[in-house]
Amino acid sequence: MVKVERKVREIIDEFQMLRGGETVGVAVSGGVDSVVLLDLLKGLAKDLKLELVVLHLEHGIRGEEARRDEAFVRDLARREGLPFHFRRVDTPRHARERGLSLEEAARELRYAFFESAAKELGLERIALGHTADDQVETVIMAFLRGAGLRGLKGIPPVRGIYIRPMLRLWRREVQEYAAERGLPFVVDSSNLDPSYLRNRIRHEVLPMLEGINPRIRERLLEMAEVLREEDEALQEVSHREKERLCRRDGPGWRLQVEELLRLPKGLRSRVLTEVFQDLAKVPLPYRHHQALKDVVEGKKRGVQLPKGLVALREGGEIYLGPEPKGTQIEERVLVVPGVTVLEGGELEIEAEERQGPPAGTPSPDVAYLDRDKLHLPLRVRSARQGDRFVPLGLGGTKKLQDFFVDEKVPRSKRSLVPVVLTGDEICWVAGMRVDERFRATPETKRTLILRLKRARR
Amino acid sequence: MVKVERKVREIIDEFQMLRGGETVGVAVSGGVDSVVLLDLLKGLAKDLKLELVVLHLEHGIRGEEARRDEAFVRDLARREGLPFHFRRVDTPRHARERGLSLEEAARELRYAFFESAAKELGLERIALGHTADDQVETVIMAFLRGAGLRGLKGIPPVRGIYIRPMLRLWRREVQEYAAERGLPFVVDSSNLDPSYLRNRIRHEVLPMLEGINPRIRERLLEMAEVLREEDEALQEVSHREKERLCRRDGPGWRLQVEELLRLPKGLRSRVLTEVFQDLAKVPLPYRHHQALKDVVEGKKRGVQLPKGLVALREGGEIYLGPEPKGTQIEERVLVVPGVTVLEGGELEIEAEERQGPPAGTPSPDVAYLDRDKLHLPLRVRSARQGDRFVPLGLGGTKKLQDFFVDEKVPRSKRSLVPVVLTGDEICWVAGMRVDERFRATPETKRTLILRLKRARR
Repeated sequence: MVKVERKVREIIDEFQMLRGGETVGVAVSGGVDSVVLLDLLKGLAKDLKLELVVLHLEHGIRGEEARRDEAFVRDLARREGLPFHFRRVDTPRHARERGLSLEEAARELRYAFFESAAKELGLERIALGHTADDQVETVIMAFLRGAGLRGLKGIPPVRGIYIRPMLRLWRREVQEYAAERGLPFVVDSSNLDPSYLRNRIRHEVLPMLEGINPRIRERLLEMAEVLREEDEALQEVSHREKERLCRRDGPGWRLQVEELLRLPKGLRSRVLTEVFQDLAKVPLPYRHHQALKDVVEGKKRGVQLPKGLVALREGGEIYLGPEPKGTQIEERVLVVPGVTVLEGGELEIEAEERQGPPAGTPSPDVAYLDRDKLHLPLRVRSARQGDRFVPLGLGGTKKLQDFFVDEKVPRSKRSLVPVVLTGDEICWVAGMRVDERFRATPETKRTLILRLKRARR
Repeated sequence: MVKVERKVREIIDEFQMLRGGETVGVAVSGGVDSVVLLDLLKGLAKDLKLELVVLHLEHGIRGEEARRDEAFVRDLARREGLPFHFRRVDTPRHARERGLSLEEAARELRYAFFESAAKELGLERIALGHTADDQVETVIMAFLRGAGLRGLKGIPPVRGIYIRPMLRLWRREVQEYAAERGLPFVVDSSNLDPSYLRNRIRHEVLPMLEGINPRIRERLLEMAEVLREEDEALQEVSHREKERLCRRDGPGWRLQVEELLRLPKGLRSRVLTEVFQDLAKVPLPYRHHQALKDVVEGKKRGVQLPKGLVALREGGEIYLGPEPKGTQIEERVLVVPGVTVLEGGELEIEAEERQGPPAGTPSPDVAYLDRDKLHLPLRVRSARQGDRFVPLGLGGTKKLQDFFVDEKVPRSKRSLVPVVLTGDEICWVAGMRVDERFRATPETKRTLILRLKRARR
């Protein structure tokens, strides 16, 4: 018993779970783990000057039995003189509405309850009753999925405000502690948690593995701790590399390919995963991970990723972000004089006619064309395969494609450049260059002024 | 079948197993895996300009059957027109002599055979026939041991000159390939390899795990690849940190504690492990790893490690290396005049008497004492608990212990400082400081000169 308390104190100190003086929510289902957790924290409360609050969620699954549990925990809190914070939710409905399994839905609602309790009650920590056996089972489940380091490292002792002071206590130790201290608890008859899979691990897989290595539990617990530290080390290093090699670009990121290729593969993968997860808020599936690596290694020019994201190679960089919206400017007639709003409403072209040669200063966004050389109506659209024009100052015809490359327009942005045509000829690559053949000169009698305007977002 | 060849070509290219033009040893036992390996490499030999040599080791375990296999492989090589390199060893005897299991002994002899074949025949690569199933079984065995990342990542596709081009081929694919190509092979009736444990994994554990996740094999194969890259990344980063924070010191290493403590724990562990392994040539057991961490974190002053190594905290550094030899200087009488060789033969003290006051220059290694203040015989030994003396220039008595601390003598080196005594009083801390009470002055009638000399190593 003394050993149990020492082990809990040690893990609390090692991971700085509590410094003392905190208000701590304790998740109490009424089962033996959570009852022992509460008892252990009560034992520390004076020494560490903790304020404890009992948190209890009724998942809305087990009917009468759940109400029995609620009454039990409420009573327990009252006897201990602790505040009792309770909520009832409808897990089955949430599962239906969100298309989740009952277990996933329960998990979502549980953490939502914890988060809101933390806010409402000013909780600095929330203590959860996971044990070493939970840890080992979680690690085995991760192995069965073929999870990477992140899965194999198991449940973290500390994550944000959540702490798990019993993560090194075996279920057997918890049960013995409860018996010795004469702690009453309830037994959950449902299979929600532990789930079906967890039950198979506990009752089939673990006994078989113990037949091969009788110390498998201890070894897997150690393994999880080692892997957690290795994962954290990699995470720290890769985060530093991400900051160095990647920069935000509007809604996405830009990644420096050469530098990425210099990293060891495992680190490179982590950087890519972190950038993806930053945008998608979900992990990058293995299959897409491979495709993304192909883009980095230059085997592919681009790839579609989950959550509407894309990765596109553009010169020495990779753009990773939402697929650019309104990727094509639909062909339309240019209103002359007047304003033509282009696809997506973010660009417009204003046209104005003036007598005589150009008076103002031309710029990439302002074109001065010779009205008499043009055939109206003018049209505007995205660049197309095969487009050619005569860029001012070059003195010869050029593929628009090559022009974009020379001007370093990222591949993802090329189709957003409005191209203005007279008949089948390009007279202006809007925002970039006028065509030599159609420009206004001092001899021009009527000037057509076109202005590209970017709407404020 | 085409798929098999493509998969092999892909893994060869991905890991740059062969660039072309190499002389390659192919380990052929005669079993289906190695026969297919030889056939696949033969298919590539022309394209990649490979010279193939068939390597076959008879382990000396299976008697007649082994001779049948030898004849089979010899014949196969002859038919293919390839050189045949053969050796017979006595595995049971090697196991007895070295105290190894039969499997360990076989492994040692096998790799010794490969190494010597590589030297003799100028082999640039040695190809081994491990399959994806071998990989998955290896990963499961590592998991059952609770191994860290290094175990869980499984068999490497490339290690030194060894390459494993079939590491992504399933046993089933290999067998189908052999059948389609009509390749003859022999069946090994022994259980040496696959071993007993491997057999249990194959026939008990894997089927049960497949009952839970039918795609477990594929997932574990992927997992091994991901973990291998993560391991390599960590290895590269930690190697860089080791180079930065640790330096060789004679037979051991010195580690900078403050800098080590700044690293993420997982990285710190790797650095410690690498330094240990550099000296011990074996991995650091988990238990000792914990103790070593305690030394780094300042919870312990020192710890004994396997292979006669120690880690000792010394000021801002940790010494990790062989326990200093001849840690004690055995007490003995100083020969006056003459030379006294101290413990281990690396230090000696030369004594010489001169009439009159001191003539030369004193230094830490040369003491001028007043012969008439000394009681012969002088003795020399290591410092002892409680030793005190009157350091020249301090004008007061001081604990030798404190003197060492002030002078920053590493703990591990203190017992190697010869202390010279007259009666029970210290007259010289050799190599460091003379005692005020016994030093020669201009009034001295007879001077005793003591010189500390370090033998050249």
